[in-house]
Amino acid sequence: MMDFFFKPKGVAIVGASANAQKGGYSILKNLKMGFEGEIYPVNPRYREIEGLTCYSSVLEVPDPVDLGIIFIAAPLVPGAIRECAERGIQGAMIESGGFAETGADGRSLQDALKRIVSTTGIRLWGPNCMGLVDTANGSVFSFVAPTIWDDGLRKGDVSLIVQSGMLSGGFLIDTMSHGTMGINKVCSIGNKVDVNECELLESLLGDPTTKAIGLYLESVSDGRKFLEICRGSQKPIVVVKGAKSADGARAALSHTASLSGNGMVMSGALAQAGVVEALDFKQMMDFCRALAMFPRLPHHSRGRVAIITYTGAGGILSSDFMEQMGLELAEISPDTREVMKRFYPDWMPVMNPFDLWPAVERHGAERVYFEAVRAVCADPNVDAILLHSFVGGFAFTPDMTEMARMARTAGKPMFCWLLGKFDEARDFHIHAQECGVPVYRELHRAVECMGAVFARKTRS
Amino acid sequence: MMDFFFKPKGVAIVGASANAQKGGYSILKNLKMGFEGEIYPVNPRYREIEGLTCYSSVLEVPDPVDLGIIFIAAPLVPGAIRECAERGIQGAMIESGGFAETGADGRSLQDALKRIVSTTGIRLWGPNCMGLVDTANGSVFSFVAPTIWDDGLRKGDVSLIVQSGMLSGGFLIDTMSHGTMGINKVCSIGNKVDVNECELLESLLGDPTTKAIGLYLESVSDGRKFLEICRGSQKPIVVVKGAKSADGARAALSHTASLSGNGMVMSGALAQAGVVEALDFKQMMDFCRALAMFPRLPHHSRGRVAIITYTGAGGILSSDFMEQMGLELAEISPDTREVMKRFYPDWMPVMNPFDLWPAVERHGAERVYFEAVRAVCADPNVDAILLHSFVGGFAFTPDMTEMARMARTAGKPMFCWLLGKFDEARDFHIHAQECGVPVYRELHRAVECMGAVFARKTRS
Repeated sequence: MMDFFFKPKGVAIVGASANAQKGGYSILKNLKMGFEGEIYPVNPRYREIEGLTCYSSVLEVPDPVDLGIIFIAAPLVPGAIRECAERGIQGAMIESGGFAETGADGRSLQDALKRIVSTTGIRLWGPNCMGLVDTANGSVFSFVAPTIWDDGLRKGDVSLIVQSGMLSGGFLIDTMSHGTMGINKVCSIGNKVDVNECELLESLLGDPTTKAIGLYLESVSDGRKFLEICRGSQKPIVVVKGAKSADGARAALSHTASLSGNGMVMSGALAQAGVVEALDFKQMMDFCRALAMFPRLPHHSRGRVAIITYTGAGGILSSDFMEQMGLELAEISPDTREVMKRFYPDWMPVMNPFDLWPAVERHGAERVYFEAVRAVCADPNVDAILLHSFVGGFAFTPDMTEMARMARTAGKPMFCWLLGKFDEARDFHIHAQECGVPVYRELHRAVECMGAVFARKTRS
Repeated sequence: MMDFFFKPKGVAIVGASANAQKGGYSILKNLKMGFEGEIYPVNPRYREIEGLTCYSSVLEVPDPVDLGIIFIAAPLVPGAIRECAERGIQGAMIESGGFAETGADGRSLQDALKRIVSTTGIRLWGPNCMGLVDTANGSVFSFVAPTIWDDGLRKGDVSLIVQSGMLSGGFLIDTMSHGTMGINKVCSIGNKVDVNECELLESLLGDPTTKAIGLYLESVSDGRKFLEICRGSQKPIVVVKGAKSADGARAALSHTASLSGNGMVMSGALAQAGVVEALDFKQMMDFCRALAMFPRLPHHSRGRVAIITYTGAGGILSSDFMEQMGLELAEISPDTREVMKRFYPDWMPVMNPFDLWPAVERHGAERVYFEAVRAVCADPNVDAILLHSFVGGFAFTPDMTEMARMARTAGKPMFCWLLGKFDEARDFHIHAQECGVPVYRELHRAVECMGAVFARKTRS
């Protein structure tokens, strides 16, 4: 569906520029970095940009071309779109702003776009958006700074639909440079003159490389349809609904010309449709990466958690948080107790949370952590594992590879709460995540994400 | 009060070791790194450790000596404490575990300690704790790994009282290596056989270098007195109460032998006493560093916030969160509107949240951000500023120094929500924080911390 947006054969960049300060240059540069189809700069002021022939009009662009990326002043956009349609181009991403978000004049320009859609059948994405970043296909159809490639565009299972440009760009650079999460696609949808979250959500639900979907929405174009799609989804969906307050709603009008509706009603409807609601983008990303790793759980699994920790206080607070999130502290089996008794000092009862510090002092972190994970993986009373880890001191960094493998084999989601030194913690985080263990720096967030994974299971 | 704990003239380390794998070595090493008084290792197995004379008993230690740090097996501790008392030592920190947290035998050892306190008058800190880390005095009286000095012990205004050893150590290393927050003192109090949170809290309230205090407590020794101290405090106090759930309470018994009481009742009482309650340690630290920066606000200040952003969506969500936190979106004055109109494109109305991106594209981030901050600093309708910042792309990193100065001069707390590239973001974070602007990586947390600062103001 809408392959011309996600996998075009050729792209015309209307408003391409040779000036590195301009968005029209960034778009071209980003295409050259990863897009494998044809690239056609369009701008009457140049004959060539970056070694590519530049055309003075879309009408002159040769085959194959099925997508236009438009980055020119708003008043010129309707004309350019008409030419795209005439040229037989199936879709256009309009990344320029200056439409309904700017008042009456812009609104009539946007209305003109709507009319072109209905008369020509061309599909429009935007306007007033950041376009598409698609790491799965290596396609960055966006004016985001090409420095985004510097840290590598880390592929991932999570795709996003974001009704904001700067935010999606900012978050993407932040996330990629931290290296602690991959992202599949970011679709920045702006004013939604034609293509909206429903169609994109359906596309992503049909995309085999996307395992979980996060959305930031200021308005919902067709609430009924949106909820219906969510209800029918096999993939986890997380939504941040912006503009739930009166002040927020007022601000949304001038951001993406959104009429935001009643926030409370929306929250209830989302929950009923099986959608996880997040407050904040960061929380949305945190939920998404947990849900993408554990979209489905074994049938018998029901949220009985073993907590493996080096800090008693961490174990206690984890128990407190679990109660709030509908998770249970697993009642461990006698076998598990027997195994761990060998490592515990005599005075210490073996119980869950497993406070391993005294055992670690006696037998080393590597061995004790490993045995604890092995024991709870074999324990029929345990459905999931919350591992507390510390790196960069106390001779304490346990290796995740084998522990993650055991948990995966046992079909038990393992989550990690991590403290530690700056650089070591990042390295550990990246490695654990690659092993299939979502890592969180804040304990409450770790438990919250476990809760989201099991709440979804309970429902299905 | 209790100066022998915080500023002893001489310290005897009972259980000092020459073996770098042992806690008794770390304690010695940590003292050598920063403590300026006399250091006396005590261990009959050595005549010298690390160039210091080692004594076979506390009784042999010469003057001056007013503190003992005890790190020997639990059954030997009562005898050692009796000797400390006999030697005239005023206080001892017992960092060994193996007391009430371990069952009946340990309980009777702890009772023995209690009797020694009442018969001799010696004051005891612990047992089963990590001791004291005091960056203000350069004193690390703890078996925490000496690598903690590697990243520098960053001084700060926030002091902590933590009823957990590993957690306080882990958090300290995490926080110090990130460099994004200084800490004044961490008091790890363990089983509280004698000295408890009340006395330490009073000490910290009297400490001119401590501006805000965070506590992690599993139990409260004397609830009535504790709440009374909090109520009378001029300094902000933040509490995480662990073991509020049934499972958590059970785990707390074997962690610090705590009887945790009713969590709900506690929450209400804390709120009434003007204490900020946090869920998680990380959130506690985030609240503390905001409150330490803005412990008092100008009399007229009442939570009317100007939001300065590069992302419309960020502005909208900030507005949403502010409503939840009891903050108001400031109605900006005509003067502010006039100033900013010069930078905004014609189509864009000047309103709060200030979505500056289109203006930044025209005039550069440095200038537009600077002018916006100057305008809202001069605006009598604005009490506080929430600045959204991005570093590492979009040619966008505005300099905080001057903006922070303007906000400080105007008496308007400025908070920053930050996205950006990994290393650049840390540098920016550290710099902004040094300029007096608390930085948060999660928008919701930034607004929550603003809310805590103004909620405190409203109360006083």
